[in-house]
Amino acid sequence: MAKAPKSPLAPKRFPAMAPVAGVELATIAAGVRYKTRADVTLAKLAPGTAVAGVFTQNRMPGAPVDWCRRHLAQGGARALIVKAGNANVFTGRAGAEAVEETAAAVARTLRCRPAEVFVASTGVIGEFLPHQRVIDALPALKAGLGPGAWNKAARAICTTDTFPKGASATAEIDGKPVTIAGIAKGSGMIAPDMATMLAFLFTDARLPAPLLQQLLERANAKSFNCITVDGDTSTSDTVLLFATGRGPRHETVESADDPRLAGFAAALDRVMTDLAHQVVRDGEGAEKFITITVSGAKSRQSARRIGLAIANSPLVKTAIAGNDANWGRIVMAVGKAGEPADRDRLRVEMGGVLIADAGGPVDGYDESALVPHMQGRAIDIAVDVGVGRGRATVWTCDLTHGYIAINADYRS
Amino acid sequence: MAKAPKSPLAPKRFPAMAPVAGVELATIAAGVRYKTRADVTLAKLAPGTAVAGVFTQNRMPGAPVDWCRRHLAQGGARALIVKAGNANVFTGRAGAEAVEETAAAVARTLRCRPAEVFVASTGVIGEFLPHQRVIDALPALKAGLGPGAWNKAARAICTTDTFPKGASATAEIDGKPVTIAGIAKGSGMIAPDMATMLAFLFTDARLPAPLLQQLLERANAKSFNCITVDGDTSTSDTVLLFATGRGPRHETVESADDPRLAGFAAALDRVMTDLAHQVVRDGEGAEKFITITVSGAKSRQSARRIGLAIANSPLVKTAIAGNDANWGRIVMAVGKAGEPADRDRLRVEMGGVLIADAGGPVDGYDESALVPHMQGRAIDIAVDVGVGRGRATVWTCDLTHGYIAINADYRS
Repeated sequence: MAKAPKSPLAPKRFPAMAPVAGVELATIAAGVRYKTRADVTLAKLAPGTAVAGVFTQNRMPGAPVDWCRRHLAQGGARALIVKAGNANVFTGRAGAEAVEETAAAVARTLRCRPAEVFVASTGVIGEFLPHQRVIDALPALKAGLGPGAWNKAARAICTTDTFPKGASATAEIDGKPVTIAGIAKGSGMIAPDMATMLAFLFTDARLPAPLLQQLLERANAKSFNCITVDGDTSTSDTVLLFATGRGPRHETVESADDPRLAGFAAALDRVMTDLAHQVVRDGEGAEKFITITVSGAKSRQSARRIGLAIANSPLVKTAIAGNDANWGRIVMAVGKAGEPADRDRLRVEMGGVLIADAGGPVDGYDESALVPHMQGRAIDIAVDVGVGRGRATVWTCDLTHGYIAINADYRS
Repeated sequence: MAKAPKSPLAPKRFPAMAPVAGVELATIAAGVRYKTRADVTLAKLAPGTAVAGVFTQNRMPGAPVDWCRRHLAQGGARALIVKAGNANVFTGRAGAEAVEETAAAVARTLRCRPAEVFVASTGVIGEFLPHQRVIDALPALKAGLGPGAWNKAARAICTTDTFPKGASATAEIDGKPVTIAGIAKGSGMIAPDMATMLAFLFTDARLPAPLLQQLLERANAKSFNCITVDGDTSTSDTVLLFATGRGPRHETVESADDPRLAGFAAALDRVMTDLAHQVVRDGEGAEKFITITVSGAKSRQSARRIGLAIANSPLVKTAIAGNDANWGRIVMAVGKAGEPADRDRLRVEMGGVLIADAGGPVDGYDESALVPHMQGRAIDIAVDVGVGRGRATVWTCDLTHGYIAINADYRS
């Protein structure tokens, strides 16, 4: 973990999370970047594990993202290895070789094929990864494998995060109980587009890879794709979902729309949304957690884009940092989104108080009613843009001196 | 002027600017918002003055922008009135009436038609404009009209600006000397899209309105449309260019491509680029002036979008604030722009030092060579994205604690 004090928005404690059958975890301090903490994480997955993934849309993806994308199509996974502190991004041929050699070494260690080894990395961009240190640590990592060390793994994947992020849920498929467990990291460079930073989800359900991919994309659209810290899209964003099929035996389900999957899909939504909120709660310098609901838009996508325009506006974020209900900046941000919106029907609420309607402030609006809400840790903004039925919720944090302090000397 | 200390990037002094024939100016402290400074500016324009304008693309434009857009088509102007401290944006029917009544009162005072009165306003969004105070001040404003008070006018249109912004140039049309003078204001909520904040340009050349509009749009594309402070597009952005035709008599020119206009177009470019740079130099909290040149893009527009993605990245801007040549964040920002770019041919320079080429850092790159450049006030970034011949330059400032301090308590 970084030296920064824990975010004031952090959950009280890491949640209790049960092991997932077919998943073993180990962490180690391999000296990738940090001297005094675990920075490499290995997950061993049971034979037959299916995998689904979504990745950054940034056009400068890191070598680990290239690798995972290339091997996702085959649908099977036997291992995941995660390095913290060095992104292995924009490192050219040497970066690609570092990934290949690491995957080959993990495959030899765990007796599987390199294509079944998934790789992820975040940290500084443009520095060469000392991957031999990772390879040298593999025997010790293998010896340490065991079930259920979620907290340790969630810590070992962190970079500038101030707390480890985990969430789990159970559901039934066809009457049989299955478990979903997830860990995530992320604090800055958060503006996911199809994926965000790193999140790894594991379930003991038995689900084929194409179906898993559909379920992951649906849940991702409502969770990680609806958060932002600073509008900067990482080159390393990776979300992987592994299904070991080692839980209680249930019927095979082939369609994501099968009603027997409704409970599982809802549990996956809960876990991913919980992890996405934890990323926002650890936003660099964050002092407030902001929920923005946009309704009356032309479509769900349009509502999301308007919500993200508000969420990424530095003027909105700094006003909230200053406990200031400066709703004029919300109007500005709605307008700058460029999406269909009717100025003369626009409606703005904060903390449940109606501020503006029909193109202007409401009669008798009294800002003092909002003061207690603005001074709190959770800020709610609701906007209706008056042109349709599209609706979306996005989450972000405020922009404070802490963000500047963290990012003006990140590498030094 | 606001109480904030003058930007360290401010020019040494306001430039010497000659009067423009056919333009008279006056300013007054009318109490629109500020108690102790001039906050209303009136420009009286000679009969026959042609006008051109570009405006914000924000979908929540203010009532003054609506008014100017509506009356631009007729091509003639006799007056300009500018109010500082209240944007008259998102004020519904009352806001539109405030503009109509103000224009009518100016028209009565100066004996012209209301449609010939152009109106602009910046400041707080969503508060009703006390326009009767402006109307009451008109007799005194009229009495004070005179040529050449550029410095006073440039001060009276300011809001959070820390210095007044002016620039002028001369050129020849058909062998006859003409003058261009311009003033601008702007410091935050700067991410122009077709226009920015407020800028007013005056020339004594004799140019018909449609031609003037073409010249303005071309110069705007290379100046105000290539700057950003915080990525937030104002609801009030307005650039107006007035041509009084009262300078030395020259031949009528009908086409913007006429070679006799080359000198005038170049002078207009210089004035508008100078004013645009001054807006960046007064960016809220700015400590450094950043020039970003993008080459090798698919088109000029694509290069501009990549440049603005770098310029708007909070991670790039905070790194520069910390004197940190964190070029990996530049790579990230190029990738997040979503424009065509070849990761494996990308080239990055800072301060003239080649850092990365062909998808990775160059052999023997030594960051210490960059230290003096990063500690200076002017930072140069050059990126070649390796896919075409498109090229653009954009300008921005760094993101500092000053920005947070200014915007977390702007209204309080």
